[in-house]
Amino acid sequence: MVSQNDHAVSVTNLLEKAVGRWPDSPSVTYEGHTFTWQQTGERCQSLAWALAGLGVGVGDRVAYLGFNSHWCFELFFASPMAGAITVPVNFRLSVDEMVDCIRDAEPTVLLVDPHHIEQGRAISRECPWLKAVVYTGDESAPDGFLSYEDLLKRAEKSDLQQSGNDDTLIIFYTGGTTGRSKGVMLTHINLFTNGLGGLSLYNTVERETHLMAGPMFHTAAGSRVYTATMMGTHTVILSKFDVLEMMTLVEQYRINTMQLVPTTLQLMVDHPQFAEFDLSSLRMITYGAAPMPVALLERALTLLPGVSFAQSYGMTEASPVVTVLDGDDHSLEARRLPRLESVGRSVFHNHVRIVNEERQALGVGDVGEIAVKGANIMKGYWRAPELTAAVLQDGWYYTGDSGYLDEDGYLFLVGRIKDMIVSGGENVYPIEIENILSRHPDISECAVIGVPHEKWGESVHAVVRLKDDAVVSESEIISYCRERIAHYKCPTGVTLMAQPLPVSAVNKILKSELRRMISGDAE
Amino acid sequence: MVSQNDHAVSVTNLLEKAVGRWPDSPSVTYEGHTFTWQQTGERCQSLAWALAGLGVGVGDRVAYLGFNSHWCFELFFASPMAGAITVPVNFRLSVDEMVDCIRDAEPTVLLVDPHHIEQGRAISRECPWLKAVVYTGDESAPDGFLSYEDLLKRAEKSDLQQSGNDDTLIIFYTGGTTGRSKGVMLTHINLFTNGLGGLSLYNTVERETHLMAGPMFHTAAGSRVYTATMMGTHTVILSKFDVLEMMTLVEQYRINTMQLVPTTLQLMVDHPQFAEFDLSSLRMITYGAAPMPVALLERALTLLPGVSFAQSYGMTEASPVVTVLDGDDHSLEARRLPRLESVGRSVFHNHVRIVNEERQALGVGDVGEIAVKGANIMKGYWRAPELTAAVLQDGWYYTGDSGYLDEDGYLFLVGRIKDMIVSGGENVYPIEIENILSRHPDISECAVIGVPHEKWGESVHAVVRLKDDAVVSESEIISYCRERIAHYKCPTGVTLMAQPLPVSAVNKILKSELRRMISGDAE
Repeated sequence: MVSQNDHAVSVTNLLEKAVGRWPDSPSVTYEGHTFTWQQTGERCQSLAWALAGLGVGVGDRVAYLGFNSHWCFELFFASPMAGAITVPVNFRLSVDEMVDCIRDAEPTVLLVDPHHIEQGRAISRECPWLKAVVYTGDESAPDGFLSYEDLLKRAEKSDLQQSGNDDTLIIFYTGGTTGRSKGVMLTHINLFTNGLGGLSLYNTVERETHLMAGPMFHTAAGSRVYTATMMGTHTVILSKFDVLEMMTLVEQYRINTMQLVPTTLQLMVDHPQFAEFDLSSLRMITYGAAPMPVALLERALTLLPGVSFAQSYGMTEASPVVTVLDGDDHSLEARRLPRLESVGRSVFHNHVRIVNEERQALGVGDVGEIAVKGANIMKGYWRAPELTAAVLQDGWYYTGDSGYLDEDGYLFLVGRIKDMIVSGGENVYPIEIENILSRHPDISECAVIGVPHEKWGESVHAVVRLKDDAVVSESEIISYCRERIAHYKCPTGVTLMAQPLPVSAVNKILKSELRRMISGDAE
Repeated sequence: MVSQNDHAVSVTNLLEKAVGRWPDSPSVTYEGHTFTWQQTGERCQSLAWALAGLGVGVGDRVAYLGFNSHWCFELFFASPMAGAITVPVNFRLSVDEMVDCIRDAEPTVLLVDPHHIEQGRAISRECPWLKAVVYTGDESAPDGFLSYEDLLKRAEKSDLQQSGNDDTLIIFYTGGTTGRSKGVMLTHINLFTNGLGGLSLYNTVERETHLMAGPMFHTAAGSRVYTATMMGTHTVILSKFDVLEMMTLVEQYRINTMQLVPTTLQLMVDHPQFAEFDLSSLRMITYGAAPMPVALLERALTLLPGVSFAQSYGMTEASPVVTVLDGDDHSLEARRLPRLESVGRSVFHNHVRIVNEERQALGVGDVGEIAVKGANIMKGYWRAPELTAAVLQDGWYYTGDSGYLDEDGYLFLVGRIKDMIVSGGENVYPIEIENILSRHPDISECAVIGVPHEKWGESVHAVVRLKDDAVVSESEIISYCRERIAHYKCPTGVTLMAQPLPVSAVNKILKSELRRMISGDAE
């Protein structure tokens, strides 16, 4: 069968379109400098040729270690133009962990930003197969590094074989909250589907201005590179998360949309200078990566009255959006409040169901593992067929999250399956207690975990950080819960923390860390 | 590289989701009988097993000859579930043309509806390789036919290898307006992209009611099977187009959306019983397949004030939508009226550009051939590599339509490249004159063509049908034009027709036919 059009789905097509349709519109702003789509298109093309010149071929990997930057944005297109795979490295890892990641991905070329020179050198020593280490900065490159900007100037045209369709486009390493990190292979189809499928949900229009606030090594922000290009969006890049810088950029560039996690939303609305900024250009804030405490959402709806909120629930393996709770469902009307505790309904391109331990579908209201199927589901884990087979079966991805669906298809999370507490034979879902605690006026942050208990198997334990100057005792916290939910669900122990709770790269609270701290449980 | 999820894009997933999420909601209504998604899902699965039992294997074709029906809808899913390709046959063809089409597609099994028994028998005699001819009706099958309903009851479970991604899902034969018909191979990716990409444009919501008014053998209606399934839409099937029946169904089933072509919209608003129907449930009418005369659109906006209109321009090779003129652009405000003459902007998943004869991109305002690239572009023509190579190059599909883009990306059609008239060295685009003529109060239908002329090469000729009882002379029509546009563009000849103008299967006026009638041009 003749197939003349075998790369119909390609992010390269999206870039080509943005250049053709909006050549003089802003594409990316980074540290005060703004590029146009025409310029970004030319830079990506030159980088693709430069990579080929360095020996990068079809299926090879190119890694990026650095904070968010226009260089990272450009690599996201140059790799597929050269048939290669982008590997963004989590800059929060220790050097040893970075080396592990690079050994696993085995890239041909590594790009390093000015903030990670030492780590780049260390990786370079440990990974002798690297054909080049490239410095992404405007200044001249340090010893041992090639200059990105020089490479672009010197790049020679060549014929490149682009990737497309179900070729791997990016490998995102999931920090996960436990266990060794895994390389999630996302294809052109996966990220194109996530982008296209999101348009109807976010009421997105052409050429808005988006603040890239999260780290691009994570799919929640990284996937936005492609969505932005599809829409001709102007992406203002926040190099590394800082709440003051974030509010400054929103005011300066009249940002329309941005993406947060609950922790950063909390930091923003709690910031002493919050009221000093003109944030009136904001049209929509999407948030995700962790359940939103209802008390915080209520506060944000009050403080940012012109903004529409959309929650998305997802994970790297789903490129990442699985469900969306849209603007209409963010209502403080009493009868609609229960919806705020849901993560919304599955997007049109995927299918969510709840299954039991035998992976059989359960009914409305039954709690079980959340499974997802659709064109957004990863190809698999990089070089880990057993791990892939453990979670992917007949197109279904088994998330390890537990939850239930209501009769209208709204999904309610009850936590990670492994975070579920079994106390005296009763299942206790931490989120329920966390929702109660987060409404307490003196509590700033909280997490509920199970700790080993001789008699009950596990007991419920709350880890709490109070607001500045607040004084509440452990027993008062326990009593507060007992007035509100069944006793068997209430914490029997409370740990008050002076410091912020430990979080992962995407600001998810690390419960594994807390369990280690509280009970010495090594998992 | 391990790829556990190599059929991420599959319309079968969409059906599985609809069954899982909306099992008791209506899926399809046909001649008064309504099925649920649960029932449709089970019937499609049984048909897939039955087809396999008849010897249909991976890559084989299954053809359907008949009016629109739930049987056709079911086949659209059963084929890919069995790894096969659906071939809907244009029921307006002559028997000889049907045989040509079946010979080209070489299906393993042919389904025939009660209205096409004789044609089915004729095809069966001419195509001895057919393993079965199946009767799609509730009654017992005529001699020589198997019964669809019996096959479903007797179907035995078996392991099937589904198709997905860039496997061909359907072959739609384009009547085209000239030349031999071609089998357009559309893949899962193509039709999934068209469906998903349309959601943000039509403000579509879950579980609306859609009237399938056009013939399902054409991609404009056929593609809606998959969009409907993605959204849990209730599809009310109009077996064969009839304007009275259409208005009856809109009232009876409280239809929210439907799709028309200008000719059928004209028939509707002109119908003497138009005002007798309650059409208030209609939320959106999409129209396309031919440029809309501005006068008709103005009329429709006045007569259907609660309805929002969206025009889409496309073709089978693009699955089919290329551009959309959305509701906001359907305004009668004077300053926005020029937009009504445009077919809108390219949808987010594809890219439109205008090229010259060397296929080089032209600038804003330049008239040239319209080229389209994106995940919606066909894989190619069935068994016609030369034809494919002539129109597909580097992912670009060269449409044969001519037009120009304005500075905001709005596309204006100026007709088929081959319909352009060259008169005395000047290019004349028929649509411009047609727009003038269609505003004449006494003109019901019109088409402008070029006819051979000794001195000028071609001369401009108008074919006009007047409204009932209207009396206008040829010279009056010419004068009417001369008062409004440059003389070189005005018709020098006019043919008044008593009958409706000849149209193709999708109600496009057949200019090739008119040229033959007027000048004996055999093309």
